[in-house]
Amino acid sequence: MTPTPVTGRVTVVGLGPGSPDSCSPEVRDLLEDASDWVGYGRYLDLAADIVEPTGQAMHRTNNRVEAERARHALDLAVEGGRVVVISSGDPGVFAMASAVMEQLDADRTLASAIEVTVHAGISAAQAAAARAGAPLGHDFCVLSLSDNLKPWALIERRLDAVGAADLVVALYNPRSRHRPDQFGLAVDVLRRHRGDTTPVVVGRSVGRPGESVRVVTLGQLAEADVQAEVDMATVVIVGSSQSTTIERAGREPWVYAPRSHPD
Amino acid sequence: MTPTPVTGRVTVVGLGPGSPDSCSPEVRDLLEDASDWVGYGRYLDLAADIVEPTGQAMHRTNNRVEAERARHALDLAVEGGRVVVISSGDPGVFAMASAVMEQLDADRTLASAIEVTVHAGISAAQAAAARAGAPLGHDFCVLSLSDNLKPWALIERRLDAVGAADLVVALYNPRSRHRPDQFGLAVDVLRRHRGDTTPVVVGRSVGRPGESVRVVTLGQLAEADVQAEVDMATVVIVGSSQSTTIERAGREPWVYAPRSHPD
Repeated sequence: MTPTPVTGRVTVVGLGPGSPDSCSPEVRDLLEDASDWVGYGRYLDLAADIVEPTGQAMHRTNNRVEAERARHALDLAVEGGRVVVISSGDPGVFAMASAVMEQLDADRTLASAIEVTVHAGISAAQAAAARAGAPLGHDFCVLSLSDNLKPWALIERRLDAVGAADLVVALYNPRSRHRPDQFGLAVDVLRRHRGDTTPVVVGRSVGRPGESVRVVTLGQLAEADVQAEVDMATVVIVGSSQSTTIERAGREPWVYAPRSHPD
Repeated sequence: MTPTPVTGRVTVVGLGPGSPDSCSPEVRDLLEDASDWVGYGRYLDLAADIVEPTGQAMHRTNNRVEAERARHALDLAVEGGRVVVISSGDPGVFAMASAVMEQLDADRTLASAIEVTVHAGISAAQAAAARAGAPLGHDFCVLSLSDNLKPWALIERRLDAVGAADLVVALYNPRSRHRPDQFGLAVDVLRRHRGDTTPVVVGRSVGRPGESVRVVTLGQLAEADVQAEVDMATVVIVGSSQSTTIERAGREPWVYAPRSHPD
């Protein structure tokens, strides 16, 4: 198969958690050099705080239209655009990289016709973990609690498996207005395997204005008032049996996963 | 408890995968501002490629002495140093953040006496994933295959659990000269749950000179000659039942995890 000559390009980038000083120079350069910025409106605003736009065409879309957004980006590249598709965090973690790949998969001639690259960023879970110490310092899992695109039964099955395997777990999309009660069900599954004193990091909007990082116990996480503070801008990191807290004067305690595990 | 006045500080930083343009500006600034650089020699060299040293004291240590290195960094801070502890990738993922926390835990007066902060970086798994497409685009696990600090039986149990839960898994420290055969055992555990056509990303030294990213199948990963290419500088990402490849003319195929799962 002779590939169609490359016209434009799509670069799928992650801004990192939000503050300009956590975005990689590579991504900054790609934002500057682009002809088109494509993304959820709020992430385009974040990008504009990192790199002053200099005439790039802005393609702002609503949340939850990832497939259309990805296809639009590829179409702009076919027309010759240097298109950046913008996610916060890492585009490879519950973000736009998979959506772009799905569109390439659906129209495989594009996979050879358009130059596509993906550029990682610091994820929300990593940013929350850094603030709290080292809760992801050893074996861990990253799960989304959203059942928009997978059945809830699979989510419970995965939580049960990682609970039984004593893995630290970082939960994305933990709780929304449309599904306020599933988070409690997820906590119940983990409590089958972990004690109520297990440390939990609740990180919200880390790296952005209004950031908060709280350390609670798994027992507290089962309480309604603690759950009420958890939303879609929150990452929740539930420790393993080995996760440990270290008290600090006047601050939230450190949480870390030891490097060793006695089994 | 009245905390002892803060003297120096320890900042635990991650350089990202290696190339200067993937290191965050925040970490760059911390490297510049430090009085002391502490780390495995190779990582100090990487840091010097990112920020020209301007008289910082260099504390180069061998690999595998994380506890002593962390304690030394804290001691330098007690003496008033502005100490950076340097990891490649993310210091919070199988790197120095947990080692520093362990030392604070062992001498808890230090936790209030010294200013300690952790600053995330793009991890090796994220860098390899970005090169390959979006293999970590949905629920995934990150496991180390090193049994230096945990029993091999626990590693097999975790592999079995994440295999049964159909989670993508990124394997760190997959294979060393001292344990050349355990990697094959790990592959065997995953093959109990996944078909031989499951896509696998084998990323070596991503972001550094000599980088290679290969896409193989899980069946191929069971072969000795493929395993022989896997070493401690390699991250191996084994897909789920849903992971998909997209052929590209003249290149390794893309690998991605779809956003949806039918269960």
